[in-house]
Amino acid sequence: MINQDKTTMIVFSGDLDKAIASFIIANGAAAMGQKVTMFFTFWGLNILRKEQYVPVKKGFLEMMFAWMMPRGPEKLGISKMNFGGLGAKMMKYIMKKKNVATLAELVQLAKDLDIEMIACAMSMEVLGIKEEELVDGLKYAGVATYLAEADQSKINLFI
Amino acid sequence: MINQDKTTMIVFSGDLDKAIASFIIANGAAAMGQKVTMFFTFWGLNILRKEQYVPVKKGFLEMMFAWMMPRGPEKLGISKMNFGGLGAKMMKYIMKKKNVATLAELVQLAKDLDIEMIACAMSMEVLGIKEEELVDGLKYAGVATYLAEADQSKINLFI
Amino acid sequence: MINQDKTTMIVFSGDLDKAIASFIIANGAAAMGQKVTMFFTFWGLNILRKEQYVPVKKGFLEMMFAWMMPRGPEKLGISKMNFGGLGAKMMKYIMKKKNVATLAELVQLAKDLDIEMIACAMSMEVLGIKEEELVDGLKYAGVATYLAEADQSKINLFI
Repeated sequence: MINQDKTTMIVFSGDLDKAIASFIIANGAAAMGQKVTMFFTFWGLNILRKEQYVPVKKGFLEMMFAWMMPRGPEKLGISKMNFGGLGAKMMKYIMKKKNVATLAELVQLAKDLDIEMIACAMSMEVLGIKEEELVDGLKYAGVATYLAEADQSKINLFI
Repeated sequence: MINQDKTTMIVFSGDLDKAIASFIIANGAAAMGQKVTMFFTFWGLNILRKEQYVPVKKGFLEMMFAWMMPRGPEKLGISKMNFGGLGAKMMKYIMKKKNVATLAELVQLAKDLDIEMIACAMSMEVLGIKEEELVDGLKYAGVATYLAEADQSKINLFI
Repeated sequence: MINQDKTTMIVFSGDLDKAIASFIIANGAAAMGQKVTMFFTFWGLNILRKEQYVPVKKGFLEMMFAWMMPRGPEKLGISKMNFGGLGAKMMKYIMKKKNVATLAELVQLAKDLDIEMIACAMSMEVLGIKEEELVDGLKYAGVATYLAEADQSKINLFI
């Protein structure tokens, strides 16, 4: 009943460092032949936001959230020692120097490896994020879809 | 040996957003017929605190911790953009407007769905939280109890 | 195919409270006869740093990171209410008073229980941490090694 080839992760965090960790694990598992599903919820959705501003109709609070939250990989902070973005800059600079892939490249690689990326519909509703604001190639679903995948996976992580 | 119907999660975080995510996953799994065990440890215990003050005998540092930590779902902050509670207020307001269940309702639903909620005895000792201060219907146990459940579960999360 | 006796965890966090939780779970599982693998990545590496300063050649940004990050169990902060280290001090004081093992003792116990501790080579590269700066008895490996272990484990956690 256990499928030997599935890894599922919930990406709750929108921190650059945790996002990088998520995609390195996900891409590694996919490269080893596993079917990988990433379920993005709450702040994790920010990883998938398009960098450019997308004009969509929003309520006032939704606009506030949208304005305060980072748009895409380039804008994320790190979970520790961010110092208003300086820490994230340092980390990105070092990773570039050491030829580690950027988060944007890791996301692209995940797509190339056919990793299933699901955006949590309920979180989108709560944070006021519309489909047009997110990158292409996503599925939109809820917790039941996640659980169906997770129940068949050998590796389940909440990040 | 693997029981197909068990989900286990450690709820370490006492952040409103992570607590909501925990209970949505847990309730979803229980609604799908799984046996779900939630093990509350460290800050996660704050989710289970009664809102009203409960007079219990405490040492000075225990009193300090108790005073600084939030009492129950209504008092929790969110993990990002909390701004001294404003972010949590915004999130609760939006969720109400969009008819998403509140955390208190999600906790009640978890009880109705017979989700096993275990409070970590060692964390209670360290943070100076007494049984009288927590909501009814909990079990009190340690890591061995968690591990016995987790070892039989297909979905294991640390939140 | 599922090995009944394996637990694997990724220790991403370098917070004292999460580190304590990791080792209590890991030591508990090992005491119950499981094979346990802990994979330390990003801030989690700080748990394994030697307390004393180790002179190694570093670039400027690596020196900055090394200087800002805590060296070993005694220096870690807690994830909530740290107040510049006061919260961590309070927690350590209470744990001592209640005869709960310190993090340093938990790490030693993990070694005695033959828990496999792996330091993430890529994170070391990014954060500029050298092998000489970490405690003895570690393995150095990457995500593929983690995934091979995780795929055979019944309990997988990301902390």
